[in-house]
Amino acid sequence: MHIDHIGIAVSDLESAITMWETLLQTSCYKRETVESEHVETAFFQTGESKVELLGATSPGSVISKYIEKRGQGLHHVAFEVDDIHAELRRLKAAGYTLLNEQPKQGADNKLIAFVHPKDSTGVLVELCQQAR
Amino acid sequence: MHIDHIGIAVSDLESAITMWETLLQTSCYKRETVESEHVETAFFQTGESKVELLGATSPGSVISKYIEKRGQGLHHVAFEVDDIHAELRRLKAAGYTLLNEQPKQGADNKLIAFVHPKDSTGVLVELCQQAR
Repeated sequence: MHIDHIGIAVSDLESAITMWETLLQTSCYKRETVESEHVETAFFQTGESKVELLGATSPGSVISKYIEKRGQGLHHVAFEVDDIHAELRRLKAAGYTLLNEQPKQGADNKLIAFVHPKDSTGVLVELCQQAR
Repeated sequence: MHIDHIGIAVSDLESAITMWETLLQTSCYKRETVESEHVETAFFQTGESKVELLGATSPGSVISKYIEKRGQGLHHVAFEVDDIHAELRRLKAAGYTLLNEQPKQGADNKLIAFVHPKDSTGVLVELCQQAR
């Protein structure tokens, strides 16, 4: 298990990309819209992990709502696992509340699922596995 | 540059350690109190990065104040750099506001400095370098 990415909610994706390119001294290598979530993403590689910026594509987006409530900032952390189905079973058996009992298709060609923040000290935790 | 660690503000360090040990399937490998910050830290290795839990050791701690205002959760992200002095000069020249113009001694035998969240889309960014 390792950190696949940290997700950051941003209010303006274009200026956020410039800011993070300068900070990390690396170019955004991919942009991808996740229609189902009304989110546009931008990725930066840093070591074995990525920084994922999340901008809303409509006012109803989960990211708009997050920013209204909490402001811009760290939104979630994602851990890459070898077998997401096995991990979800393991965590459920250990008493963790899963926001997704079954993995769904996420950005970056991954299968993803979220653990409820109440069971991870307020942190929204994503598990992900490269889709085959 | 890579993610050295993500810092998580927690209200009860003992139960948080148990929760994250189960989640990450790895034991906390170090605990360390940073007296100057009134913070106790607990570290977990996950790939090349660490998860750092931050618990307050007194009500005046920056972590207590953070939790009062925002609740438990993701507090900062730290990037390891080769030369923290050079990085701070580079970012200052690029217009970033530094919370520490000079690096200070942090947990885990690191030199650390923070960038103001207003210049990094609301994210508290730490730069760190292994102290020699």
